[in-house]
Order: sequence, then structure tokens, then C-alpha cells
Amino acid sequence: MKGRFISIEGGEGAGKSTVIKLVREWLHERGYQVDLTREPGGTPMAEEIRQVMLAPRDETVDNLTELLLVFAARRQHVMARVLPKLQQGEWVVSDRFLDSSYVYQGLGRGIDTRTIDMLASLTVGDTLPDLTLLLDVPVDIGMERVRSRGAKDRLDGEALHFHEQVRRGFLQRAEQDPSRISVIDASGTLESVLEQVRVTLEQRLFSGDQ
Amino acid sequence: MKGRFISIEGGEGAGKSTVIKLVREWLHERGYQVDLTREPGGTPMAEEIRQVMLAPRDETVDNLTELLLVFAARRQHVMARVLPKLQQGEWVVSDRFLDSSYVYQGLGRGIDTRTIDMLASLTVGDTLPDLTLLLDVPVDIGMERVRSRGAKDRLDGEALHFHEQVRRGFLQRAEQDPSRISVIDASGTLESVLEQVRVTLEQRLFSGDQ
Ligand SMILES: Nc1ncnc2c1ncn2[C@@H]1O[C@H](COP(=O)(O)OP(=O)(O)OP(=O)(O)O)[C@@H](O)[C@H]1O
Ligand SMILES: Nc1ncnc2c1ncn2[C@@H]1O[C@H](COP(=O)(O)OP(=O)(O)OP(=O)(O)O)[C@@H](O)[C@H]1O
Ligand SMILES: [Mg+2]
Ligand SMILES: [Mg+2]
Repeated sequence: MKGRFISIEGGEGAGKSTVIKLVREWLHERGYQVDLTREPGGTPMAEEIRQVMLAPRDETVDNLTELLLVFAARRQHVMARVLPKLQQGEWVVSDRFLDSSYVYQGLGRGIDTRTIDMLASLTVGDTLPDLTLLLDVPVDIGMERVRSRGAKDRLDGEALHFHEQVRRGFLQRAEQDPSRISVIDASGTLESVLEQVRVTLEQRLFSGDQ
Repeated sequence: MKGRFISIEGGEGAGKSTVIKLVREWLHERGYQVDLTREPGGTPMAEEIRQVMLAPRDETVDNLTELLLVFAARRQHVMARVLPKLQQGEWVVSDRFLDSSYVYQGLGRGIDTRTIDMLASLTVGDTLPDLTLLLDVPVDIGMERVRSRGAKDRLDGEALHFHEQVRRGFLQRAEQDPSRISVIDASGTLESVLEQVRVTLEQRLFSGDQ
């Protein structure tokens, strides 16, 4: 029996890292083994690649360099963690996955969709999520949540316009692939977000003949 | 006035790091500014990527992960160092470049030539060397030189068969692209190697209307 693969996507402060833990609890209660992971990262080597990518530096980081690092980390994550876990029957829930590359490296850094498609098919193949939960919040709410939390990284420093683009980019991905990506209104209370997530998981993964 | 780009290729112990310094001296004497560099590496970020790639680790490193890291480092090297230097009129001489990927990641790790072609055209475009010096030595001579020098890394530990494959792989590249790649018999004394290198540079870069 193969496990299921779920990714959680959304802009900064949408609530991904908060929601993912509650998804795990909920799946545990139903008797599943759950492996929580994140991107970029998820294995020791992939976490090192993440650090190289996000470290502040004097050198201008080329956009394609960043893209190739993201996909190097993803390939390692898929081969050394996601696939083995799924094959052992565990569920894998990842805080960000492929959609973030289309949004941050594609839309955000101006890299061609076809270039990302090509790297995706090379490195991920058909190890796509069975379900992607897109946590959608207005930019001001997301930014307010991030501010209340503290720390800054390279992406945090960028402008409001960028975050609006990111939000629209994710929503566009959801429109293009509605059978995989489910949009969750993440602007309300945590309880309202979780209720939507529970309903979505029930409908998408536990109803019908699955 | 744009500078020229030279790469030095060959198996371990062929003499690349020794020869490159003498190439610089010779070019200096002719009045050129010369930037010596190496791959993977050549910029602080690319050197960090090299370290992530070569570090011994428990985790099995996927072949495509390695390939993507090599090309991430190369892209950064080309954009942040090779191209700017050439545009300033300096000569750039690199200890290894693209041919090493076809040999080590391609032949060595079994990655498709077309995958490497695709990454090469994405990341390097037309910033190809004007001239590549392929230092060719029989495997036993190269290995003996390495042994006399000391240290070991992940590639050093691999078998004789692998090094034979590497040697044939480089020679094959030279056959396919003889107008760029010049084969130097590097099995003799350093003086005989340098004499061949000088003759090649004269013929390939300083003769005719160039
Ligand atoms: N629905 C919610 N209502 C109010 N606050 C929330 C809600 N969801 C999360 N938060 C809080 O907002 C902050 C950001 O949440 P979280 O870290 O889960 O977001 P994230 O999507 O993982 O962000 P990042 O992309 O930066 O990792 C946290 O302090 C969290 O406790
Ligand atoms: N023609 C030569 N004759 C004898 N010894 C040589 C010759 N060229 C280089 N050496 C010696 O062989 C050793 C390996 O040379 P070098 O480090 O230049 O090789 P390399 O191609 O850079 O190897 P690597 O791929 O491992 O970096 C050094 O100790 C060097 O002094
Ligand atoms: Mg988070
Ligand atoms: Mg060397």
C-alpha cells in the first residue's frame, strides 16, 4: 500500500507551518503514519542547499542559479525522502513543493514557465502531490502575521507588489489544476481554516472509492 | 576588446592545476591580463555549492542532484565571473569547465547526453571556451601523480575502470569538437607538456587574422 502525498502552499504568513502540524494530528487520529517535511530542504543535503540559496551575500545571485539550486534540493528530497516514505506506506506532507517554484522563481524572478516545466519533469517526474492545499490570504494579513512572528530573510525584505504577485500566481496555479489544488480561505481564525482543511481532506482523499 | 576564454580539461593527475599557472605566466609575458579560475567553483557561492556536492555524507546523493548542483555552480561562475572578466578584456582560464560534466556526470554517472546539452544551453549559452586544452595521460601515470600528491575525495576512491572511461570520454569529446578542443599528450615531462601547450596557443589563438 502506497501512502499519499500532500503539499501545503501559500505566501508568507499564510499559516502553512501552523496548519501542517494539525493536518498531521488529524491523519494520526485516523491511523496513518505521517512524515512532515518542507522545501527547500527535507534531507540533510537539501537543507544545506537551502542554506546556500538563502544566505545573504555580497555576490549577486543569478536567477537561474537559484532555480537550479531549488531543483537540486527538490530532486534530493524526492529521491531520498518523499518516494521512500510513500513506498513504505507513509503519508508525506510537505510545507511547500513544486508550485512555489512556479510562483517564486517563475513569476517572482521572471523565469520562463517552460524552463520550470522542463526541470520539473526531469527531477520530479510523476511524484506530484495527490492533493495541494493552497492557503490563500490577503497580503496585508499575511504580512501582519509575519511581523508578529519576528525574523526576516531575503524574500521578506521585498515589496508589497511582489507579495501581491505571489498571491495571484498561486491562485492562477489553482485555476489551472483544480483537480489537484484546493484553495483554502486562510484569512479567518485558525479554527475556520482547519475546518476547511478537514472538509477538503475528507472530500478529496477519503470519499468515494479511494 | 573582449578577452579570450580557455578551459583546461583532463582526468585527475593529468597536470591541469600545474599547467594552468604556466599558461598564465606565458600570457602575462605577452601583455594580457589573466584570470585563473576553476570549476566547480570560481565564486564564493559556487565554491559553497562545490563543498555541498563533494562533502562525504551518509545520505545517498542522487546523480541528478549532483548534476543540478554542478550546473548551478557553473551558472553562477559564468554570470558573476567569466562573462564580466571577458567583457573587461581579461583572458579567463578555467581549470575544468563544461566538458567535465559530460564526462563525469554523463559517462561516469550515466546521465543522458541530451539532459546535459539542455542544461548547458540553458546555463552557459554561447559562453563556450574559445579553446580547450585536453591534457591526456594514461590512467596509471595520472594515478601515480595523484598518489605522490596526497589527499583523497569522493572521485579519487573510485576504480581504475572509471578512470579509463573518463579518459576515453574526454578523447571522444575532442574528436567531436576538434576545432575547439586540442589534445595535449601530457604523459611526458612538464617541459614537453608546456612546449605543446605553447605551440597550441600560438596556432589556435595567435596565428592568422586573429
Ligand atoms: N488563521 C490564523 N489566524 C491568525 N494567526 C495565524 C493563523 N495561522 C497562522 N497564524 C500565525 O501567523 C504566523 C505565521 O504563520 P505560519 O508560520 O504558520 O505561516 P507560514 O505560511 O508557514 O509562513 P512562512 O511562509 O513565512 O513560513 C504565526 O505566528 C502563526 O501562529
Ligand atoms: N608532466 C608532469 N610530469 C610529472 N609530474 C607532473 C606533471 N604534471 C604535473 N605533475 C605532478 O603531478 C601531480 C598532479 O598534477 P596536478 O595537480 O597539476 O594535476 P590535476 O590535473 O590538476 O589533478 P586534479 O584533477 O586531481 O586536480 C602534481 O604533484 C604535479 O606536480
Ligand atoms: Mg512556514
Ligand atoms: Mg587540479
